[in-house]
Amino acid sequence: MREFVPPATRFVDLPPAFTMTSGGTLRDARIAYETFGRLNAARDNAVLVLTGLSPDAHAASHPADPTPGWWEAMLGPGKPVDTDLWHVICVNSLGSCKGSTGPASIDPATGEPYRLDFPELSMEDIADAAAFTVRALGIERLACVIGASMGGMSSLSLLARHPGLARNHINLSGAVHSLPFSIAVRSLQREAIRSDPDWRQGRYDDEHYPRRGMLTARKLGMMTYRSATEWETRFGRTRLSPESLEGQEPFSPEFQVESYLDFHARRFVRRFDPNSYLYLSRGMDRFDLGASCGGDAHQALSRLGVENALVMGAESDILFPLRQQRDIAEGLRSGGTHVEFVPVDSPAGHDAFLADMDRFGPPVAKFLALLS
Amino acid sequence: MREFVPPATRFVDLPPAFTMTSGGTLRDARIAYETFGRLNAARDNAVLVLTGLSPDAHAASHPADPTPGWWEAMLGPGKPVDTDLWHVICVNSLGSCKGSTGPASIDPATGEPYRLDFPELSMEDIADAAAFTVRALGIERLACVIGASMGGMSSLSLLARHPGLARNHINLSGAVHSLPFSIAVRSLQREAIRSDPDWRQGRYDDEHYPRRGMLTARKLGMMTYRSATEWETRFGRTRLSPESLEGQEPFSPEFQVESYLDFHARRFVRRFDPNSYLYLSRGMDRFDLGASCGGDAHQALSRLGVENALVMGAESDILFPLRQQRDIAEGLRSGGTHVEFVPVDSPAGHDAFLADMDRFGPPVAKFLALLS
Repeated sequence: MREFVPPATRFVDLPPAFTMTSGGTLRDARIAYETFGRLNAARDNAVLVLTGLSPDAHAASHPADPTPGWWEAMLGPGKPVDTDLWHVICVNSLGSCKGSTGPASIDPATGEPYRLDFPELSMEDIADAAAFTVRALGIERLACVIGASMGGMSSLSLLARHPGLARNHINLSGAVHSLPFSIAVRSLQREAIRSDPDWRQGRYDDEHYPRRGMLTARKLGMMTYRSATEWETRFGRTRLSPESLEGQEPFSPEFQVESYLDFHARRFVRRFDPNSYLYLSRGMDRFDLGASCGGDAHQALSRLGVENALVMGAESDILFPLRQQRDIAEGLRSGGTHVEFVPVDSPAGHDAFLADMDRFGPPVAKFLALLS
Repeated sequence: MREFVPPATRFVDLPPAFTMTSGGTLRDARIAYETFGRLNAARDNAVLVLTGLSPDAHAASHPADPTPGWWEAMLGPGKPVDTDLWHVICVNSLGSCKGSTGPASIDPATGEPYRLDFPELSMEDIADAAAFTVRALGIERLACVIGASMGGMSSLSLLARHPGLARNHINLSGAVHSLPFSIAVRSLQREAIRSDPDWRQGRYDDEHYPRRGMLTARKLGMMTYRSATEWETRFGRTRLSPESLEGQEPFSPEFQVESYLDFHARRFVRRFDPNSYLYLSRGMDRFDLGASCGGDAHQALSRLGVENALVMGAESDILFPLRQQRDIAEGLRSGGTHVEFVPVDSPAGHDAFLADMDRFGPPVAKFLALLS
């Protein structure tokens, strides 16, 4: 059981007993975060970033950790989210394994990792923990909350559960709930992990680690994060060299696209806690903004009280299809929010907000410039 | 190791030494087939059906086996492929496990199943074996060859390698080669089987059977055969009843779409030989009509010498996307074939030729009516 905390990540302690929406309680939990840019004297230039399933709080390089972050092209001095203007807080989700308390953390009651004794986790819990963190940092009102992918879900939840905490909102490739195809993809990813004999009902260790299950889960993820068109341009039907095939097991990779998936999945597999993956993945399936607000999603969106919103998504996204972002835009608009809806014709699929900065950067820059 | 042969399936012996495109040789191999409707005196009303990866030769019910076949709605008296007019031969692919010789068959040299000693298998081999079968049944010229999905590949190969054998062609949801996304899907399916400890490098038996790997492979298949839109209408976010969740393992299915996948995958898992699946799946990845004809695919199509062709595909197909069927139509047309290209706006994805008979049936019926 390992946690994977970037070197300059800092922490906020949650209340000694943090109650989760499932009714479970976390004792002495903490939230990992990093900040970028300075908070101004009026304390009104803070922007919160909520992440997708796998990122940590190190969204971009900064003086204390010059390593490039996962959103390096989006965030920094002179970047679309300009840290010369904004004080950005990126929070690692509750339940993750990148510093915030999650299934790989030590349960103070037992001195052992929580593993499957971690309480059920919801997007609402992630939102509540993030809201607590923001306030603990002395910020009463955010200029904007930005959420992409799973972060698009948790930020909608934050807006619903903490009215007035954020004035404006950027939602990238997000959704008010998961569609059955996305649930099926994640279900299969979880099944790959669970059916790996080394998962051991969550009681794996470094020696017995569900490596194969994690590999399959990650590859399946990568297949649904990107688009078929992108891969056509990128790999076509290029084969591996005959030499590299020699001595391989039967039915091993023969095409470049296969070895690409293999290479990247192998990099991921030891850097994310499998139990944490299961909890966050299931939390996304269950998220339902409408249901959790006691009505339908459109109604819930119309009541969020956001002043301005930018909603973006990619045509080629099969996991969070564009019509889900259109629904968010329409719901917000019906409540009086001034909404920019920017559908993007990118081949980069669900990952476009990470991979296609040419298309995602400028609308974000423009939107934030109008707020400042 | 089991084969799964429908009761009324018949057999044609291949030549005692059948040479495969890989250079391998099969001894005493056979091809399973069923026929529907009568061959006329002129022997000019024969139609060959080549199947997708998993079906057997029992495409439809007939007097000798009244069980409904896998294409029951398409084929029979008065159906789109009208067996009152046509003598239909459905061939089980070489390498399958439904009666034709494949990895689960006994190798006469050893008295043991071939398993991974089965020679490398190509779409060309499947086409050659089917062509041999047709001629062995006394048919020199087919009125039409119909191929869907993988059968769309093997039928293009048959037309290229056996000029003059078929006058006309129906290609449904087919392709001249596999795209990287489809290769990636199949690669992951194979990996799920190969990484199941019970696969044992192909040496499983009934007691040690790669059940979990086959389940994952099939679920992944089902996810790519159908479309996200169809599932939205069909399942939405309906949950299983609280009672059915009780006592389940952690992270077990909670949503209807998950239990649907589970139910259907379980039905499949013991009915298809895992090694056979690996061979056929890899054969599809490797198929490349252009390369195998020493040029590009467009050129190869233009030389097939088909008189009339019907080419169909579904907008929602992510595995054999519609542009691949458009390419087939254009290639054939450039060679002088009279082509009907019918793109279908169906939510049923790659499986639309099986599942959406309302949209696929009438164009097939109309095309065949013009030939008779």
